Amino acid sequence: MKDSDMDIQAVMAEIGAKAKAAAGTLAYASAERKHAALIGAADAVWANRAEIIAANDKDMIFGADKGLSPAMMDRLKLDEERIRAVVDGLRAVAEQPDPVGELLEEWDMASGLHIARVRTPLGVIGVIFESRPNVTADAGALCLKAGNAAILRPGSEAFNSAQAIHACMIQGLAQANLPTDAIQIIPTRDRAAVGEMLTMTDTVDVIVPRGGKGLVGLVQSEARVPVFAHLEGIVHIYVDRDADVDKTRKVIVNAKTRRTGICGAVECLLIDRAFLDAHGAPFLEDLIAAGVEVRGDSPLHSINGVIESTPQDWGHEYLDMIVAAKTVDGLDGAMAHIRQYGSNHTDAIMTENAATAARFLNELDSAILMHNASTQFADGGEFGMGAEIGIATGKLHARGPVGAKQLTSFKYQVTGDGTIRG
Amino acid sequence: MKDSDMDIQAVMAEIGAKAKAAAGTLAYASAERKHAALIGAADAVWANRAEIIAANDKDMIFGADKGLSPAMMDRLKLDEERIRAVVDGLRAVAEQPDPVGELLEEWDMASGLHIARVRTPLGVIGVIFESRPNVTADAGALCLKAGNAAILRPGSEAFNSAQAIHACMIQGLAQANLPTDAIQIIPTRDRAAVGEMLTMTDTVDVIVPRGGKGLVGLVQSEARVPVFAHLEGIVHIYVDRDADVDKTRKVIVNAKTRRTGICGAVECLLIDRAFLDAHGAPFLEDLIAAGVEVRGDSPLHSINGVIESTPQDWGHEYLDMIVAAKTVDGLDGAMAHIRQYGSNHTDAIMTENAATAARFLNELDSAILMHNASTQFADGGEFGMGAEIGIATGKLHARGPVGAKQLTSFKYQVTGDGTIRG
Repeated sequence: MKDSDMDIQAVMAEIGAKAKAAAGTLAYASAERKHAALIGAADAVWANRAEIIAANDKDMIFGADKGLSPAMMDRLKLDEERIRAVVDGLRAVAEQPDPVGELLEEWDMASGLHIARVRTPLGVIGVIFESRPNVTADAGALCLKAGNAAILRPGSEAFNSAQAIHACMIQGLAQANLPTDAIQIIPTRDRAAVGEMLTMTDTVDVIVPRGGKGLVGLVQSEARVPVFAHLEGIVHIYVDRDADVDKTRKVIVNAKTRRTGICGAVECLLIDRAFLDAHGAPFLEDLIAAGVEVRGDSPLHSINGVIESTPQDWGHEYLDMIVAAKTVDGLDGAMAHIRQYGSNHTDAIMTENAATAARFLNELDSAILMHNASTQFADGGEFGMGAEIGIATGKLHARGPVGAKQLTSFKYQVTGDGTIRG
Repeated sequence: MKDSDMDIQAVMAEIGAKAKAAAGTLAYASAERKHAALIGAADAVWANRAEIIAANDKDMIFGADKGLSPAMMDRLKLDEERIRAVVDGLRAVAEQPDPVGELLEEWDMASGLHIARVRTPLGVIGVIFESRPNVTADAGALCLKAGNAAILRPGSEAFNSAQAIHACMIQGLAQANLPTDAIQIIPTRDRAAVGEMLTMTDTVDVIVPRGGKGLVGLVQSEARVPVFAHLEGIVHIYVDRDADVDKTRKVIVNAKTRRTGICGAVECLLIDRAFLDAHGAPFLEDLIAAGVEVRGDSPLHSINGVIESTPQDWGHEYLDMIVAAKTVDGLDGAMAHIRQYGSNHTDAIMTENAATAARFLNELDSAILMHNASTQFADGGEFGMGAEIGIATGKLHARGPVGAKQLTSFKYQVTGDGTIRG
């Protein structure tokens, strides 16, 4: 079917209705059947790796024609090793505990009622992603594990690869006797489908955008459906007067350079003047030696290699070998900076002073606050949640890493014995 | 100030900014100070009862001029007894456990990280209500208890009474050295202020509409901010073939007639054909004897006093001495009807068959599902949550009765010892 022949609104409405119907069944599908579907999908991905790579070849040609950057082409590329990682990911989600039906709390009332709060699926989750075709499997698997129906919208450059992986997910569902509408993929590259999905309040419960700031910003501003996402990871590390110098050097180099392109990479260092006076800033020298461009305010200019910061450096997400550095007046100065420029994603303090650390962890309201640890740990896997579909910075519902458990809701089950209210 | 002289947008922006600033302080205010503020407010309400009643007299005159119904006038009315109830309500919320800072879960990772999930306030909560002036105290108190700043918008008819009660809340805050911007009231009857508040995504975290379907529907359709609410309580009770006749009679009469105007009042009875064949429907006779109008489908017409239902009776919220009644084919017929016509608020089953009850409680997805109990228990107080600000039917975040605990979010506090990611 040519995209131009498609009535996008009708296609999306049908996808939404099918997803909602599938979600009704999935909500009480047994853990065993969901497990079987994921194992079946993993087997199908491995068995069909040649077909997936052939589909990916088409996408790579499309991408090259489109003039994608080498980094984008790399994200798009699938080979046997990456397909093995997809298979391993599906198996890992399959083996996670099933969150649905979990008893969250229960209590008895004097009226004679027994009240239980029980975990339920969210319903229908729309996932909008960009060039990484493996998200088809990761996101589909996490939604299914939590009993949700998924509607997947891959980036146009990953269109063929995503379809090929999706076909394997369907095989797994069919083998497990689960509705194949549980994981659907939008059958067009037409961007109108995204706009449609963002407003399908009757059938879509949550949208998860996975991608860059452009995509997330668009989704956040246009969606009429709740969104689980973070726009930016403007991650700070505050070096307190009572920081241990060696720990701080080790943590800062790791937080910046381990991987610069992830949302937990540190983007701004806040240095207590008292620390600077006592110890200098050896971690800046470490960073410079490691090839990081350090943009510092005037008290830091005496350090060899530090270049002058501009106001645009505060609150900036580089995702690159660049870091901003600023001197502050103690904890209160650091917290004031973070409140003004942070993005409520992840912020850390280096200190050996427990009272100072407690204030930082209690008084700030980032989704993740760290003490004496690298901000690169801001990740569902590192939190023990298994795979994650992303990290959210909203105040409601899912916050921080979003794994299967975070893709759920709850209901109350109340039991009496002919109990009436007086 | 005359309303027409007011720049509503500027006024609301200022209120929002003040609320956000107050929320920053409230977020880590001690439990003792919040307790003191609520006790101080309770004392101030009692001390100023003459002023509150005088303000209420003005509202009653305004209401009479406006031609409010006797029911509306009754909701608006304050007397010493009702002010005593406001005082008791404030004291009850004061004595509730403080939810903020509660350790929700904690665990250790092999990496050396200790991860704690800790309860935090939501931030700024906008509460839009109608004619009951006591909501000023109830809603303000619950928001404060959970460390949130509140922006209150009373119905125009309750304008003076709400202001008088609000002044007492401010006294409590000031005595406890908490920011008086923690509880603000919109200083105009102009409806444009509501429209403004619904779109203040930078400063308002959640809107709670308290009132009828008109208000809630308007808020749900216009808000760009998350809303905790239910549009309707289309509450069903399914009478299974294995229901105990006596319990069922007792529960149904209570669920309909105890109070007809609350959202947990039953609106539709679904009767298993097998139950009807075996036992008839004595609870319909009970209801008719109690003065309830019963609108039934054809198998029920043989019962004396049952009038003929129309398709408009399915999925209808009467909030009155009227009930719909329909025969269904067993549990599956009942669940199909509830899925089609329910509002995901509260639904109940009467049965002595544990397997049938389990299916009803597991397979449906209402916020509250009940077994052998009156649906009139759908209430935060009856759930042991203390006061409630309302009942929510959304899938995200607060669901079911919304008390202080449900007006919170959480954050992760992660502790290492110079821990870096490999």
